[in-house]
Amino acid sequence: MTDFSILLFDGFETLDAMGPAEIIGVMPDAFRLRYCSLGGGIVESAQGLRADTVPACEVPAGGILLIPGGIGTRTLIQNKQALDTIKAFAQASGYVLTVCTGSLVLGKTGLLDGREATTNKKLFALVAGANPNVRWRRHARWVTDGKYYTSSGVSAGMDMVLGFVSDTVGYETAKAAANQMEYLWNEDKTLDPFARE
Amino acid sequence: MTDFSILLFDGFETLDAMGPAEIIGVMPDAFRLRYCSLGGGIVESAQGLRADTVPACEVPAGGILLIPGGIGTRTLIQNKQALDTIKAFAQASGYVLTVCTGSLVLGKTGLLDGREATTNKKLFALVAGANPNVRWRRHARWVTDGKYYTSSGVSAGMDMVLGFVSDTVGYETAKAAANQMEYLWNEDKTLDPFARE
Repeated sequence: MTDFSILLFDGFETLDAMGPAEIIGVMPDAFRLRYCSLGGGIVESAQGLRADTVPACEVPAGGILLIPGGIGTRTLIQNKQALDTIKAFAQASGYVLTVCTGSLVLGKTGLLDGREATTNKKLFALVAGANPNVRWRRHARWVTDGKYYTSSGVSAGMDMVLGFVSDTVGYETAKAAANQMEYLWNEDKTLDPFARE
Repeated sequence: MTDFSILLFDGFETLDAMGPAEIIGVMPDAFRLRYCSLGGGIVESAQGLRADTVPACEVPAGGILLIPGGIGTRTLIQNKQALDTIKAFAQASGYVLTVCTGSLVLGKTGLLDGREATTNKKLFALVAGANPNVRWRRHARWVTDGKYYTSSGVSAGMDMVLGFVSDTVGYETAKAAANQMEYLWNEDKTLDPFARE
């Protein structure tokens, strides 16, 4: 049983977090799913979803951390104490996954420096410009580099998390989860119809 | 500005509700999105998401109601008072959309009797058997009949809601929302790769 924690914050993008939550949540024998935030309590998504969370400090080390994107990332990266806490959380995690502009936050911790990563395609210039030492890949549904998985915008997070399950648990398990959700999984991480280059 | 209310209950399926919430939430100029429940307050999804809600009685008449599915629907349909309230809510709504086994709940109100509808393909026999007067269509990503929209399992709800936006606001608006989410919209409601007949 592996801990899978989704870090929520005010202004997170709903589907960035809840698409992955659905996938991980349909495998309760493999993953212990948590919704956490830096302070705990209620946080509100960019789409007005008020979600209850546990404090991130209560999450055991060694699990999987997922950081969604959303308009709230712009505020988060201005907060040095928050970035320090997220950096320590990420360093203590076995895997770190970001969706959309979640890579903006992880990038600002410095942990992606020298690594390959991707992000939302409409906001590519903003995210890449803010993190010039990351080897950004524009044409990818998601990118893996060591323990880091980064995805394109919003719904790409679901494809990435299924890819993560495929890599770490097995392809058949990932495919079964997609089928249970009647989800047409975009399995090829190199196919990116939203990239323009 | 149209009210779009998502009815949550204990044991709702996370993505059934939050996929549509994402789509509607990226169009704040067109829709006023609400998360409601019969009693208001915190309800918990089948995937452990604790979401804050407003009481359904505070939702104005004439808007759009979306009912997600999930394991909690099995309890909900045993509760006559809950079904009566949901029936009145649906009757007062301009459109009623269900995702997955949300059609089990709407079916048990009697409002789908004589109408065409679809539901989750793995639970088709259960839902259809519980509502023999509905004209169930096995092979459909989603089905429309008058003010009622019903979709297949979980992720099909996103395709249906984009279809609903296309029908009621316009195709270009729906396509733009899908593109903003980097979502590969399955636009054809008659294409159902998860149906077996």
